[in-house]
Amino acid sequence: MSGELTYLTIADAAALLRKKKLSPVELAQAALERVASLNPRLNAFITVTAERALRDARAAEREIVRGKYRGPLHGIPITLKDNICTAGVRTTAGSRILGNFIPPADAEVARKLSRAGAVLLGKTNLHEFAYGITTENPHFGPARNPWNTACIPGGSSGGSAAAVATGMGFASVGTDTGGSIRIPSALCGIVGLKPNFGRVSCQGIVPLAVTLDHAGPLARTVSDAAILLDAICEGEETKSAFYQAARKGWNERGAKKRLRLGWPRDYFFDRVDAEIRRAIEAAVKVFERLGARIEEVALPRVAESAEPSTQIALAEALEYHESQGYFPARAAEYGDDVRGRLEMASAVRAVDYLKAQKVREQVRADFRAAFARVDAIVAPTTPIPAPRLGENTAKIAGESQSVRGALVRMNRPANFTGFPVISVPCGFTRGGLPIGMALHGAEWGEAQLLRIAAAYEQATEWHKRRPALPASV
Amino acid sequence: MSGELTYLTIADAAALLRKKKLSPVELAQAALERVASLNPRLNAFITVTAERALRDARAAEREIVRGKYRGPLHGIPITLKDNICTAGVRTTAGSRILGNFIPPADAEVARKLSRAGAVLLGKTNLHEFAYGITTENPHFGPARNPWNTACIPGGSSGGSAAAVATGMGFASVGTDTGGSIRIPSALCGIVGLKPNFGRVSCQGIVPLAVTLDHAGPLARTVSDAAILLDAICEGEETKSAFYQAARKGWNERGAKKRLRLGWPRDYFFDRVDAEIRRAIEAAVKVFERLGARIEEVALPRVAESAEPSTQIALAEALEYHESQGYFPARAAEYGDDVRGRLEMASAVRAVDYLKAQKVREQVRADFRAAFARVDAIVAPTTPIPAPRLGENTAKIAGESQSVRGALVRMNRPANFTGFPVISVPCGFTRGGLPIGMALHGAEWGEAQLLRIAAAYEQATEWHKRRPALPASV
Repeated sequence: MSGELTYLTIADAAALLRKKKLSPVELAQAALERVASLNPRLNAFITVTAERALRDARAAEREIVRGKYRGPLHGIPITLKDNICTAGVRTTAGSRILGNFIPPADAEVARKLSRAGAVLLGKTNLHEFAYGITTENPHFGPARNPWNTACIPGGSSGGSAAAVATGMGFASVGTDTGGSIRIPSALCGIVGLKPNFGRVSCQGIVPLAVTLDHAGPLARTVSDAAILLDAICEGEETKSAFYQAARKGWNERGAKKRLRLGWPRDYFFDRVDAEIRRAIEAAVKVFERLGARIEEVALPRVAESAEPSTQIALAEALEYHESQGYFPARAAEYGDDVRGRLEMASAVRAVDYLKAQKVREQVRADFRAAFARVDAIVAPTTPIPAPRLGENTAKIAGESQSVRGALVRMNRPANFTGFPVISVPCGFTRGGLPIGMALHGAEWGEAQLLRIAAAYEQATEWHKRRPALPASV
Repeated sequence: MSGELTYLTIADAAALLRKKKLSPVELAQAALERVASLNPRLNAFITVTAERALRDARAAEREIVRGKYRGPLHGIPITLKDNICTAGVRTTAGSRILGNFIPPADAEVARKLSRAGAVLLGKTNLHEFAYGITTENPHFGPARNPWNTACIPGGSSGGSAAAVATGMGFASVGTDTGGSIRIPSALCGIVGLKPNFGRVSCQGIVPLAVTLDHAGPLARTVSDAAILLDAICEGEETKSAFYQAARKGWNERGAKKRLRLGWPRDYFFDRVDAEIRRAIEAAVKVFERLGARIEEVALPRVAESAEPSTQIALAEALEYHESQGYFPARAAEYGDDVRGRLEMASAVRAVDYLKAQKVREQVRADFRAAFARVDAIVAPTTPIPAPRLGENTAKIAGESQSVRGALVRMNRPANFTGFPVISVPCGFTRGGLPIGMALHGAEWGEAQLLRIAAAYEQATEWHKRRPALPASV
């Protein structure tokens, strides 16, 4: 029963809550039951805020009963990645160093979600300091993939994705510095949106790399992601603009323009698992049936972004950890992989950081030129499905490569540019693991991206499949 | 005779030109005669553009005769520091590497000055690549101080300052990354204005350090500097706003507010030559006689800016030289000092560059807090008068310190903040060397700064003294 309730779309749940056919307390209890039942196997949470959730839910109930309805998130249980500060609720960033940190104030996104009436279920597991893509957390244990618990959920927002995919909350807010929203969304079969840089404030979020960091929603549908984005974005002007865009889709009355979808000639289809490539090709056929015209687009300088984006991430990460006095003073308290990255970061020269920022402008120019011709660019979110825990290398077409390299490769260009991308479910491997399609959008073009992603979602069923975990109650 | 003409203020010369009592050609010839007579001793020019000057002057004459008067720089001979690109005119940046570089296009400031009708006399000597403060140029020979040719004129805009001080042109545009307009202006007894960062475009200027680089005027009076700033600043809206501000001064009808002048408790009066300190104290008394109230201001974190600003300069300089393929490939073609700096720059870590940018915000906060209480802050432009050529150390109160360190120390904070500063003549040492007073202004506060500097200038005679070089013709 809790499965049914907790797998509703946010809009459907909100309609029931608003009409008082469903109590926020009942909904929070259902979600907490699901957490109690599933989290021991998935380890998606670092902190479950059960009391806070019930308190939030009772407050929402009182307000709704009194006719003070705040909007589509009022009374909806959600989760926050545990690098997002929550006043009075421990925020670890998945680290031992912040293992007992109780923030004095909410991060801006947490504050906005509270104001929207959302109910906080808990703080989700992540790769230590968000600096990795497996969520094999050495301090809080690994989060697991709900489609196959021997596999990683991806990261760094792995706990958020595993929770959302299994109905432990309707949606989550994660962060994405090199794919950390999109990778776990793809590997767990949900929707993940990295908005445009600056669309969502990172104030009060433990930083990874300040010019690459983004916060954004993980959700089960494009519309749910849009509702979250409406709530957490900067500025008051959008109200429900993103949700309205997602609800309309591309072909709704009024949108007369034929969709132009870009197929990248460069970079994004180099070294991609054959099953995943076929899934993306099939998704493109769906778009063609919807009337889209497919155009090849050139992104010649994206290939040059790997090293520069790594250097920027390393330098900015180290700046935070040194300035806080965490590194190297407390190096022993880090997991091996993150410590290793921070050690490497010291070798990045200032001059190379500055050169990297110049390459960034060139890669932006490539994308801008492409978006002058197409409305969105299609790519795999990841070139491989979820690897098994502990697996450091993956084979693609017989060629061995690092799991980290493979997963970051497709994603970091959009952190480099700052332009928006959404990952949507677009199939499954024969082994039953989800496949994600990335739709890259033009600068500040989230609304258009949501319309395009929604059009695809409306034409397909992939987003409706649920992992076959035992029923919770 | 040429001395008389070439020492006019720009406004006075412009009035004669406009009324056709003076021909632009006659004025250009007078200036060129002065260059021919004095430059062999001062080496202020790398390139004298005599033909171009006469062509510009004839064009100005034709236009003025036809009634097409462009404004106060129409027909006025000026010079440009030789790191400012001039279409078709060699632009060396004082380097051997660019020794034969003929730019295809004007820098933005050169274009603006042409449009204003200014007559280009030539390109002035500078420290190699503007990266030093002595103008002891290893490729084109040292520029010399017109008050004592055994002394340096300061740098890096040393040629510009020596030329302006001796009537070889009415004014010059220089660049300032750590004092390179203000230091030579002070040491040569003229006015130098480092505007707010971004006020004047650096497009088409060979960069030294992109976040510290500024272009601005060197002139003999505050009003002349203001006329230049009106011509070269970004945006069209100011027209003659800066000149009007300088002409009015502080106490003109309409300005009822009492001037509040800040005396820095920290940093700027540490280790200052006694004669220079006395000159600044005497200048402050002049301000008091003009009705100013003097307040001590705290700038506690300015002292922390030395190392970070050096790191930013090093890293950004190296980025340019590496990206252009000049360094290290052509290291042997640099002078020892600049090569040494670029070699050091490679050791600056990216993380330290990022930390330095954070210190920058703190220093800006210090100045902003001070400018909430005062209209300008007074300081010595340099803590020592012009050292002799080849002199690497200077004694202040018996303590030995590096000439470079002493000269940069007072100046780099304003490159760090990006806030405007003007240096005005405020006295002479017993040895007959000029002393400069720096007036620091609030963000984007050049107009107010010019009013304050003009008030001081109107009350004093220092700016009227001329170096005792033999008459030219």
